[in-house]
Amino acid sequence: MSEIELFTALEGGSITSPKGFKSGGLHCGLKKTDRNDLGVILCEVPATAAAVYTTNIFQAAPLKVTRESLANGTLQAIIVNSGNANACTGEQGEADAYEMRAAAAQHLGVELNDVAVASTGVIGELLKMDCVRSGIAALPEKLDGGAAGAEEFCQAILTTDLVKKEIAVKVLVGGVEVTIAGAAKGSGMIHPNMATMLGFMTTDADISAEDLHSLLRSATNVTFNMITVDGDTSTNDMLVSMASGLAGNEKLTRLHPDWDAFAAGFTYVCQRLAKAIARDGEGATHLIEVQVNGAVHDEAAAAIAKTVVGSSLVKSAIFGADANWGRIIAAVGRAGVPVSPERVNISLGDIEVLLHSKPVVFDEEKALAYLQKSETVLITVDLHDGTGKATAWGCDLTYDYVRINAAYRT
Amino acid sequence: MSEIELFTALEGGSITSPKGFKSGGLHCGLKKTDRNDLGVILCEVPATAAAVYTTNIFQAAPLKVTRESLANGTLQAIIVNSGNANACTGEQGEADAYEMRAAAAQHLGVELNDVAVASTGVIGELLKMDCVRSGIAALPEKLDGGAAGAEEFCQAILTTDLVKKEIAVKVLVGGVEVTIAGAAKGSGMIHPNMATMLGFMTTDADISAEDLHSLLRSATNVTFNMITVDGDTSTNDMLVSMASGLAGNEKLTRLHPDWDAFAAGFTYVCQRLAKAIARDGEGATHLIEVQVNGAVHDEAAAAIAKTVVGSSLVKSAIFGADANWGRIIAAVGRAGVPVSPERVNISLGDIEVLLHSKPVVFDEEKALAYLQKSETVLITVDLHDGTGKATAWGCDLTYDYVRINAAYRT
Repeated sequence: MSEIELFTALEGGSITSPKGFKSGGLHCGLKKTDRNDLGVILCEVPATAAAVYTTNIFQAAPLKVTRESLANGTLQAIIVNSGNANACTGEQGEADAYEMRAAAAQHLGVELNDVAVASTGVIGELLKMDCVRSGIAALPEKLDGGAAGAEEFCQAILTTDLVKKEIAVKVLVGGVEVTIAGAAKGSGMIHPNMATMLGFMTTDADISAEDLHSLLRSATNVTFNMITVDGDTSTNDMLVSMASGLAGNEKLTRLHPDWDAFAAGFTYVCQRLAKAIARDGEGATHLIEVQVNGAVHDEAAAAIAKTVVGSSLVKSAIFGADANWGRIIAAVGRAGVPVSPERVNISLGDIEVLLHSKPVVFDEEKALAYLQKSETVLITVDLHDGTGKATAWGCDLTYDYVRINAAYRT
Repeated sequence: MSEIELFTALEGGSITSPKGFKSGGLHCGLKKTDRNDLGVILCEVPATAAAVYTTNIFQAAPLKVTRESLANGTLQAIIVNSGNANACTGEQGEADAYEMRAAAAQHLGVELNDVAVASTGVIGELLKMDCVRSGIAALPEKLDGGAAGAEEFCQAILTTDLVKKEIAVKVLVGGVEVTIAGAAKGSGMIHPNMATMLGFMTTDADISAEDLHSLLRSATNVTFNMITVDGDTSTNDMLVSMASGLAGNEKLTRLHPDWDAFAAGFTYVCQRLAKAIARDGEGATHLIEVQVNGAVHDEAAAAIAKTVVGSSLVKSAIFGADANWGRIIAAVGRAGVPVSPERVNISLGDIEVLLHSKPVVFDEEKALAYLQKSETVLITVDLHDGTGKATAWGCDLTYDYVRINAAYRT
């Protein structure tokens, strides 16, 4: 892995590891349990910022507000609630999102246009604004520049997630240490399409908004856009990135000799968060990684990888520890991209099950053991049609997915 | 319903109701239980025939053989096995499919090129040809021109299906009674794409192969291509239609005054079978019907209807009797077709839940009762963007879907 030389994972790192960031969270009353449901990230200076949003036609009110705030390319605070998506809530919902922004700006002492708003939870119900108002008023005293503040924030953005998702790395830019960190939530309504969860990235790098945005987009394409839990794309999801510029590095541009290292570290943070979301897919017991090689081009490889990892039949088979490669090849064949049907190889881990599109007699006991015992199940598909490759991540389909989603609102 | 005047459902009708058809089935040893796994439909004359096939790139061996037989536009027999799909079985699989055809031709006394072959079941395992050979040899004595033969055939084509799917209607063509019938199997790996199950249609109408084929295609588009169980498209599926011409009607063409009646009856048979497949979706407890009106065109309506009915989150909510319309609108918004986000109405049965994209306060008790007690759950989406409309069918996602598919091979 050449990437290991480019950046270093930061043990115990969090979104407050980059210089200039504080965060916090609390329970304001939107969730029925006493779990945190309101969180904030604050930068001590207006940060260079960029975001990508869901492609769903029905975009929740907070996305409109965040787009407005981001028009000037800077953000200083992000206010997030869970428990209610503030989506399909009409004019009142928009007014509520604007009020969240205004209240956060007032209590945090930052410009209105430097506040992003994000919401996640049930669609179509109005926010309990009394809770939100008192919560935002209480947030400033919860702000903390260490791991504790990040922990409270991470808890505040979760819905059906079982675990928080957080990672930080260090990169040298012109000899100066730069930190990149991210936190994310998401375990249902997750499907490959621009920004399919809530994700928040912080860095202390000095970088332009344009370069940050283009890096965010390219990193998203190979990470967050390559995961699927259930094929559903939310109305609310966004990935927001803030760069405080406080590391003191030479300004990063695409021409800087350390751009590749920074981009690799940034993409690694996205990939780790994306995989964590897939692993924490609702009800999941396995992370599934599908690597497709030898496709006619990368886009075809991506389409195939996403189709395989999104197949309900493949997902059920992995849950059942059944080496049912027939479902894998059936998914390859319906991905809608060119494939030569006579030369496909498929492996589960290092167990070859199909060679040149013909079944290989394999050790069923070994396959059963691999599927039962592996935290991550690796499916490799070699097409021998070209040099296109892609990796997608997902999770198995279990009784618990059905249980969780048969009773989400109630 | 004007259609009721055009044709009449035939009480107790079956694929042997049209003149000239016999059928039968038996257990030859491909299924582990003693259920039938080999079936045949025989016409007493070479029948005008047409078929549509799966769009999956990996097409099973029987499809190749059937395409060859159908090149001359006639069929006299269809031999079908369940328990093994004979897919991804290489040259041996092809040889086996050809041998099935040859054996059926020999034992039934028909031309080699008038035999279609269909298989369904597990992918990637070679057929037990000893069982198939002795089964085909024993099939002629099982042939029956009444309901009993059709029953044995219907049982022989089932896999994880819980119920047989069979229907017949009568139509007057130039004053002469014509019968149209169909039988189908399918409850998993079902997704809107040309011919996503095994389906067999018989009629005694006199009709050209070209007209039969074009009718088969147009009927499939609004019926079998509008159902989804799990989004997976099989390697094996086909819909084959045989017309014996023995009804004695004036030859049907598109210009015949009774063409519309015949087409309506034919489409009705397809629709009933398609809905029966969706209702019998693996583990399903409800049929879900999604009607989309007011789309920019019919294709957009179809894309939206299929996206909603295929959403794992919508399917789980229906299982849980949760009137979670937020998931419905989220699915509408990711269907990939134009929708004006401000004027969408959604109803569950006759309960309006969204009006002009804003939540309606509805009676949750009434909605719960509707979702719990309705065999068929109707979701209506009105877009107010144009005149495009479409209907799609699917089923809820349940614990049993996961149970069935976590342990299919084993």
